[in-house]
Amino acid sequence: MGLNSFQTSGNSPGDAQRCRVGILGVGTVGAAVARRLTGPDRLPHLTLTHLCDRRARDKQARQPDALAQLAWTDRFDDLLASDIDIVIETIPGTEPAIDYVRAALLAGKSVVTSNKSVIANQGAALLTLAERQGRQLRYEAAIGGAMPIVRAIGDGLAGDRVLRLDAILNATSNAVLSNMEATGCSLDDAIAEACAAGYAETNPSEDLDGADAAAKLAILCGLAFQLRVPPAAIETRTTMRVGATEFAKAKLRGGTIRQIAHASFDREHGRLEAWVAPSFVPNGSLFASTVGPRSAAVVSCVYAGEILLGGQAGGGDATAAAVLADALAIARDRAAIVPAPVLVPVKQIDGLSDSQLAEAV
Amino acid sequence: MGLNSFQTSGNSPGDAQRCRVGILGVGTVGAAVARRLTGPDRLPHLTLTHLCDRRARDKQARQPDALAQLAWTDRFDDLLASDIDIVIETIPGTEPAIDYVRAALLAGKSVVTSNKSVIANQGAALLTLAERQGRQLRYEAAIGGAMPIVRAIGDGLAGDRVLRLDAILNATSNAVLSNMEATGCSLDDAIAEACAAGYAETNPSEDLDGADAAAKLAILCGLAFQLRVPPAAIETRTTMRVGATEFAKAKLRGGTIRQIAHASFDREHGRLEAWVAPSFVPNGSLFASTVGPRSAAVVSCVYAGEILLGGQAGGGDATAAAVLADALAIARDRAAIVPAPVLVPVKQIDGLSDSQLAEAV
Repeated sequence: MGLNSFQTSGNSPGDAQRCRVGILGVGTVGAAVARRLTGPDRLPHLTLTHLCDRRARDKQARQPDALAQLAWTDRFDDLLASDIDIVIETIPGTEPAIDYVRAALLAGKSVVTSNKSVIANQGAALLTLAERQGRQLRYEAAIGGAMPIVRAIGDGLAGDRVLRLDAILNATSNAVLSNMEATGCSLDDAIAEACAAGYAETNPSEDLDGADAAAKLAILCGLAFQLRVPPAAIETRTTMRVGATEFAKAKLRGGTIRQIAHASFDREHGRLEAWVAPSFVPNGSLFASTVGPRSAAVVSCVYAGEILLGGQAGGGDATAAAVLADALAIARDRAAIVPAPVLVPVKQIDGLSDSQLAEAV
Repeated sequence: MGLNSFQTSGNSPGDAQRCRVGILGVGTVGAAVARRLTGPDRLPHLTLTHLCDRRARDKQARQPDALAQLAWTDRFDDLLASDIDIVIETIPGTEPAIDYVRAALLAGKSVVTSNKSVIANQGAALLTLAERQGRQLRYEAAIGGAMPIVRAIGDGLAGDRVLRLDAILNATSNAVLSNMEATGCSLDDAIAEACAAGYAETNPSEDLDGADAAAKLAILCGLAFQLRVPPAAIETRTTMRVGATEFAKAKLRGGTIRQIAHASFDREHGRLEAWVAPSFVPNGSLFASTVGPRSAAVVSCVYAGEILLGGQAGGGDATAAAVLADALAIARDRAAIVPAPVLVPVKQIDGLSDSQLAEAV
């Protein structure tokens, strides 16, 4: 009986294995994870041993001792050849991240990723590979930062049927829109402020045009409806053209404007509706009260009714917390850690070129 | 590759074992679980085989065929002696529920409970026993119905540190208070309406006085702060004395009134503050917009900031969905199902008589 005696299940940290962890990509999120795993508030079941980054030498030189003395490399093969149990993948973009995740699973590692593109584009194939390898692939941090929506839908609502979901999935747009609402400033000024505060890239078109939210929504459609939806098949309308006029109209209607990602699935007729667009949200709703770089979601289910979720989405620390929760879940899964890796030759990994969406709609 | 290919991890239903399930207590929640497991929308990995209830014979006679033909019994020993993997415990109150849960774990069964009293009073000891037995004990349904707060704190925030939590944990009080706010009716009228709608018992004093929320808060203190807090040690103030005057004052201050359960833990000084009381909540907050028989929570963490959760809390179907999600999580845990039960004689199960709260405050 110890401090951890109130975990949810027999899968308590009490019987967690000690896991060796390697980080792939020491950017904002990767560095935040590395700091947590070597700092004063470290997690007892996770030991960081390897860091892999294209600019490993430069970055290693700038770290405090506890971090600099670990094994740094610019070769991903060094991670694969090491005895780490978990690869934490935090590099941006689709390629080569997908290849790295696949290679890690084939080498018998479990993987935690914060990379939405990897899961949105190859999630189904990689999850199947993970299952065949007896390993885990977790991606809570890929959507909504600290908002635990992957867990809520994938595990918490596993006993239910999701009918629809509406969500704020892009924190940058939300920071921009809620700032325009609060201060009456122009879109450009709001973007400039978001950049200055570190919430936005200099060119936040992927955020404001809806591509970022669409990739996340594609992942959620997989989790909620068991559909493989290519991100590009989700219709998006840009938030770039929202101005003072739109906010004034929304105010008269008793609400405001947020970038909303929507998906609803009619199982009986096999019809999926999925889009991302700036939308009217009524005052008093979860969305209207979601201000700044935050995520929020309303998940509507047959049995449980509406589930509400919200959380901070910006910043390395919040995303790192989600990554670490996933790594701890793997450490608690004895089956994913204990047996020696079995390397199964994979003859074919199904691609995502055939779209269930196209058939469904 | 199948419909379930987008689960969160290697623990996907794809590799779930087929689990045999028995229900202990065929009341509102137990009956809703039984209907789901034998109805048209059943879950592929769970097979209901046994039902145990004091009035088994009466209840069996009133069921549809699919349910009536299963094994019904009024003797708990029949459940223990059966080949079920999971006992779903939905009887009310502390005793004999605690004894039943302990006996089920000793007999090598995993347990899902919707009974807050069992976990609030003996959770730590029973979770330790589950761990020793290599079995799981899950209790998402014990708090907040369909709001996945046990998962969010126990798993989703495992990589963080919770600083404080504020929550609406008693759906009856919330239905009563939000009705008074909306219609201006008296407390007695609101209670009568909640009774008529099935949200409240005829004597809802446990709800309105705060004992129900305190038991749930005690469980959450265990999860969030790793503290064992006896429910009776949590200070409660009754909601019974809230009337039109209090609502008028709250409105002038720009808010309304909800029954809030609060806990904050100062780790450095080992001080826990925990109470349940009718409280002022500002307009625009998650709590003010939580109306009817619902739960809501704001969990504040060091790294992830504020996490928001909300969900329907009344009704058998919503609670049953939470129970079934827990049962599916057990079905996915090969380690908790596959090995033959090991019956370890337990010499002593620690009680909860010594209060960490008393030391902490």
